[in-house]
Amino acid sequence: MRERKVMLAHGAGGKEMGELLADLFFSRVAENLKKVSGGVGIDFPDDAATIPLPTGEYLVVSIDSYTVNPIYFPGGNIGKLAACGSINDVLMMGGKPLAMLDAIVVEEGFPLDELDLLVNSFLEVLKEENVPLIGGDFKVMPKGTIDKVVISTVGLGIAKRPIIDVNVREGDKIIVSGSLGEHGATILALQQGMDVKSKGLQSDVRTLTPVMIPLIERCGEYLHAARDPTRGGLAMVLNDWAKDSGTIIVVEEEKIPLKPEVKAYAGMLGIDPLYLASEGVAVLAVESSMAEEVLEFLLERGCENASIIGEVRRSEKYEGLVLYRSAVGGVRILEAPTGELVPRIC
Amino acid sequence: MRERKVMLAHGAGGKEMGELLADLFFSRVAENLKKVSGGVGIDFPDDAATIPLPTGEYLVVSIDSYTVNPIYFPGGNIGKLAACGSINDVLMMGGKPLAMLDAIVVEEGFPLDELDLLVNSFLEVLKEENVPLIGGDFKVMPKGTIDKVVISTVGLGIAKRPIIDVNVREGDKIIVSGSLGEHGATILALQQGMDVKSKGLQSDVRTLTPVMIPLIERCGEYLHAARDPTRGGLAMVLNDWAKDSGTIIVVEEEKIPLKPEVKAYAGMLGIDPLYLASEGVAVLAVESSMAEEVLEFLLERGCENASIIGEVRRSEKYEGLVLYRSAVGGVRILEAPTGELVPRIC
Repeated sequence: MRERKVMLAHGAGGKEMGELLADLFFSRVAENLKKVSGGVGIDFPDDAATIPLPTGEYLVVSIDSYTVNPIYFPGGNIGKLAACGSINDVLMMGGKPLAMLDAIVVEEGFPLDELDLLVNSFLEVLKEENVPLIGGDFKVMPKGTIDKVVISTVGLGIAKRPIIDVNVREGDKIIVSGSLGEHGATILALQQGMDVKSKGLQSDVRTLTPVMIPLIERCGEYLHAARDPTRGGLAMVLNDWAKDSGTIIVVEEEKIPLKPEVKAYAGMLGIDPLYLASEGVAVLAVESSMAEEVLEFLLERGCENASIIGEVRRSEKYEGLVLYRSAVGGVRILEAPTGELVPRIC
Repeated sequence: MRERKVMLAHGAGGKEMGELLADLFFSRVAENLKKVSGGVGIDFPDDAATIPLPTGEYLVVSIDSYTVNPIYFPGGNIGKLAACGSINDVLMMGGKPLAMLDAIVVEEGFPLDELDLLVNSFLEVLKEENVPLIGGDFKVMPKGTIDKVVISTVGLGIAKRPIIDVNVREGDKIIVSGSLGEHGATILALQQGMDVKSKGLQSDVRTLTPVMIPLIERCGEYLHAARDPTRGGLAMVLNDWAKDSGTIIVVEEEKIPLKPEVKAYAGMLGIDPLYLASEGVAVLAVESSMAEEVLEFLLERGCENASIIGEVRRSEKYEGLVLYRSAVGGVRILEAPTGELVPRIC
């Protein structure tokens, strides 16, 4: 029998990854060891885990390893990405960022000036966000055993009311806070040796704090789900939500904000931009009656491309599916991503 | 001017690493962003960070990236090491382990059966310790861009009274819970292609929970400092303590437990075994009046090589130094480790 091996697709955030993690972890860990009692753990994979606190609030904890290649890109670098990504994970769980830890693994021979620059970008984000760095680890691997640098970050936060994505429900409106796929398109173009600047491509990497904190305070109870569409893009988020909540989600092509340059680039390569990662966009499932108010709030806060892109419906026939209504008419199923589109996207 | 580059020594846990982290982080982050108010952060690097909870207790958080090479070794593998290491970091901070998160970065083409085995070893430790796995990340890097697998783990715990190592004080006795350097000697021998089994070498990787939890409950207030001597070994721990507390620490060669095979192997290579990593040993600074009781407790609990190896003294002349009294007479300074002895030790 042929030996089975880890494929790039196993790390792409899509179907193959879900199956592998189910085999390795979810099916193997006893139910009582999948979470801290009263919290969210690997029993329902979300942006982060929660642990109940005696105050009635919840500690939010996320971990991510950032392996993006190239480590510099228009809009940021791996240091900025590592800080923003973990802060966004805490926010998407309904948490206010409290502290961060990092672990850097770097290749022997990597220029110290570059390491300095990357750490500086990382720390700049924390400074702007007023989030303390409370711990870390630092390892060096011999030349040739790791490509440049991998940064792992832990985000800690406090949530009064965690946003647990399994709560997506019939009638909810799906809102995105900005145009999609810019980070993914940029990294993919760079990996293919393209001149991204002339194409106007730039990563959207940023923290969502200025939007999410006031939004959570104002109407947190109406936010039934929140996720940043990183690996696997919008398609992955919506497929997860539909499957986990036993609903169908219908989105309208003409409502989905995509910059012309992302559309053009994706079209050229025959890639659906809905599979491309964003690093500064929130996807929200909002109680229907509040959807217009949330949209207005986002527009006022500078999210100029925010849009209500669809809604959640109940349907026994199509349970767990995402339907995509084309601008020119016709409806197709928007599948969960499979295979590896862009290795080392984040 | 020649470009400065990251050297293996920067990741060795010794002097060069301390200087680099000071440049990159400690000197750069504002004091109020080095910790959560009332807790321990990077203002005083310890085994883990703490965050005060409204109950008067403290949340303990650690992060480590495990890069050990080879990934299998007598006594364990990288999966077991990643679980034990982070649990021990929580314990050394006076915390009771509460939960864990992991982030695995694996090389494309790595056999799935091996990944399965490593994850299984990781989960076995958590099961034995009754510690839930509440979150994680999983990335794949293309073949040739990472050597096999790196595992980052986050340990979370609750401490009634954190053990903060800056509290080492005059009169304290230094106790080690077992013989030293076994993990380091084993990995080093394997990296040099030696047959470690015939030499009787084996990693000591294990959790210290069975010893530390009852010890903390019984006499936590007398444990002024606790650390597991990983990178840089006992020499690093004692130098950190002496420097940070402004004391001198005097240890006696004849009291320091070393297995003959570790001694023989280190002697052969001209390496001081006090610089070699342990992964299942605690070094404690204990109030003098309680030292005999703690030692007895450790011996009763199966730490058959536990020993009082020295004490903390005040001396203006030698402040910050570690003195080593040889069995045959004479005293020398036990320097903090410099350079890179063993890359990818943990």
